[in-house]
Amino acid sequence: MAHRIAVIAGDGIGTEVMPEGLRALEAAAKRFDIALEFTTFEFGNCDYYLEHGKMMPDDWFEQLKDFDALFYGAVGWPDKVPDHISLWGSLLQFRRQFDQYINLRPCKLMPGIKSPLAGREPGDIDFYVVRENTEGEYSSIGGKMFEGTEREIVIQETVMSRTGVDRVLKYAFDLAQTRPRKKLTSATKSNGISITMPYWDERVLEMAKQYPEINVDKFHIDILTANFVLHPDWFDVVVGSNLFGDILSDLGPACTGTIGIAPSANINPEGKFPSLFEPVHGSAPDIAGKGIANPIGQIWSGAMMLEHLGYKEASDAMVAAIENVLSEGDQNVLTGDIGGKGTTKTLGEAIADAI
Amino acid sequence: MAHRIAVIAGDGIGTEVMPEGLRALEAAAKRFDIALEFTTFEFGNCDYYLEHGKMMPDDWFEQLKDFDALFYGAVGWPDKVPDHISLWGSLLQFRRQFDQYINLRPCKLMPGIKSPLAGREPGDIDFYVVRENTEGEYSSIGGKMFEGTEREIVIQETVMSRTGVDRVLKYAFDLAQTRPRKKLTSATKSNGISITMPYWDERVLEMAKQYPEINVDKFHIDILTANFVLHPDWFDVVVGSNLFGDILSDLGPACTGTIGIAPSANINPEGKFPSLFEPVHGSAPDIAGKGIANPIGQIWSGAMMLEHLGYKEASDAMVAAIENVLSEGDQNVLTGDIGGKGTTKTLGEAIADAI
Ligand SMILES: CC(C)[C@H](C(=O)O)[C@@H](O)C(=O)O
Ligand SMILES: CC(C)[C@H](C(=O)O)[C@@H](O)C(=O)O
Repeated sequence: MAHRIAVIAGDGIGTEVMPEGLRALEAAAKRFDIALEFTTFEFGNCDYYLEHGKMMPDDWFEQLKDFDALFYGAVGWPDKVPDHISLWGSLLQFRRQFDQYINLRPCKLMPGIKSPLAGREPGDIDFYVVRENTEGEYSSIGGKMFEGTEREIVIQETVMSRTGVDRVLKYAFDLAQTRPRKKLTSATKSNGISITMPYWDERVLEMAKQYPEINVDKFHIDILTANFVLHPDWFDVVVGSNLFGDILSDLGPACTGTIGIAPSANINPEGKFPSLFEPVHGSAPDIAGKGIANPIGQIWSGAMMLEHLGYKEASDAMVAAIENVLSEGDQNVLTGDIGGKGTTKTLGEAIADAI
Repeated sequence: MAHRIAVIAGDGIGTEVMPEGLRALEAAAKRFDIALEFTTFEFGNCDYYLEHGKMMPDDWFEQLKDFDALFYGAVGWPDKVPDHISLWGSLLQFRRQFDQYINLRPCKLMPGIKSPLAGREPGDIDFYVVRENTEGEYSSIGGKMFEGTEREIVIQETVMSRTGVDRVLKYAFDLAQTRPRKKLTSATKSNGISITMPYWDERVLEMAKQYPEINVDKFHIDILTANFVLHPDWFDVVVGSNLFGDILSDLGPACTGTIGIAPSANINPEGKFPSLFEPVHGSAPDIAGKGIANPIGQIWSGAMMLEHLGYKEASDAMVAAIENVLSEGDQNVLTGDIGGKGTTKTLGEAIADAI
């Protein structure tokens, strides 16, 4: 039976990189004889909002819940719809309603890509950011008082539950267990954020007891971002709250040269709901419509999707194809952000061919 | 009449860099004929806590409030006292009780210092982070429910007031006004943190109306940290909430080579209470006691203090002395973190001599 994949391209360059993601997946499916069935959805973008006054139809959950995975582009177009409305009306709904409580983001310096960090070579940077993806700083509780006056005050809650914290920690420790260095770094800020963050630290200590082989350390988020730049080789698996994971999983890929190639998986590990795979980059209104966006983040996200569906070999082949095309370094193939003169399509086609 | 300076060295390397900070200040005071009177306080460190069960005496506010400035080292020693207790019992009290609502942190690539970013030279990175320093994510409101059970939940508020947001924005816009590039970047996360951060954006838009000459942009904090690494030359004045400012003012200095040299000023602009000057680095238990900590962050903070007290020329001379000693690059003088074999003392003495 075919795996049913829901495809939502979203806004801006999401719609440009998606075809290349699909092209690469089709190549891998053909080579490894995997049956994938793609169904495209036209909602979850800002034009849909302008037409319908909402980002998705009321029955989106019903429409999507039985798919095996969601393959997502990028969402947001602030000139049409404010970001907090477009994002809370789509991506953040999926993460929460489909209980995709793990956001997994590899940071790997790839061959042929120049790191902005002096003297760093492929192999020097290779770690995962594991981000809590449903609670924490991204709560929807709070409000405004004395609106419009000098006394105006706005409050928003950060919410951490034992369930929420423990399950992401467990996932991160389990992942560290599978890695040669068996190292886990926790992102905290318990010196300044004095209620939720000391709780996070407590749960890390508690979980660590069950993983005596794992080498655990922690850094406050401020110095941790500094260490990403100064010592990216220190890291193996880095686990953080929703906000801290968000920051680290943009900063980490930046240290590996470009946000354009970074993939991510929003995972419901129990498989009760579909998981969602999307590039780390956003919809990039500034370069949208030019056909120059780097499709690697989308393609690599497709590779993560295949691994999630149980096709490790096909997934590895997709990543190897990306690495090969990057190593070859053909100026006419690579996109501008990684030093070439090619287009979304030339790069996407080269990778599909390599698969 | 002499300016009265309260000196609190704190913990760890705070006690090692402080003498060099004072040495440099005394040299500047002598050369520019400034009367400074230093009074040392033995509280505000973790040993004091172990002895008294609190970080400071109950009358600390009375003892300190009439000083012209506080010159601070670094506080925290997690093996003795948990960070959230030591910090909330000292530094964070000063910031809040003395209404030091501006935290000003220059990020400048200095001569002789190697940036971890490839190909960046002195002049390429030169911006200020202006951090809100009294509210935001560093609230003390919140708590725990269902403690010790599976249903355990922890909540902490982020609080932004119009007063708090507007005054830090005003300071940042005024600062941008004095700079040749007249550029201001706002750090936000209004796509994910959907109540407080859209409010922050709103106030930025509102304030910008009063500064038509300023070129204003904004980035979400995730991509902003990425851009610090990819495009540090884009920034001139960056303004952020308490947490975002904290992160950016460690990451920025890391991009300029080392946290060890970065200074900061915690300012009460109205002068109703004393302002506080401290290095950005912490107490660094890992290198404490070895006499190898870099004293430049402390010395440069002293320069910021002189500027605050009205001695711009003396302040500039201190910064020039730092630049000269760094340019000379004498291995026997510089500390290990910036490529030398010297000590806290050799570097401190060289800078005092240069002044
Ligand atoms: C020690 C800590 C509470 C403090 C902060 O987060 O404000 C420090 O990181 C700083 O930047 O001054
Ligand atoms: C678009 C935004 C809400 C989102 C997030 O902050 O989670 C994005 O930055 C990401 O990392 O997936």
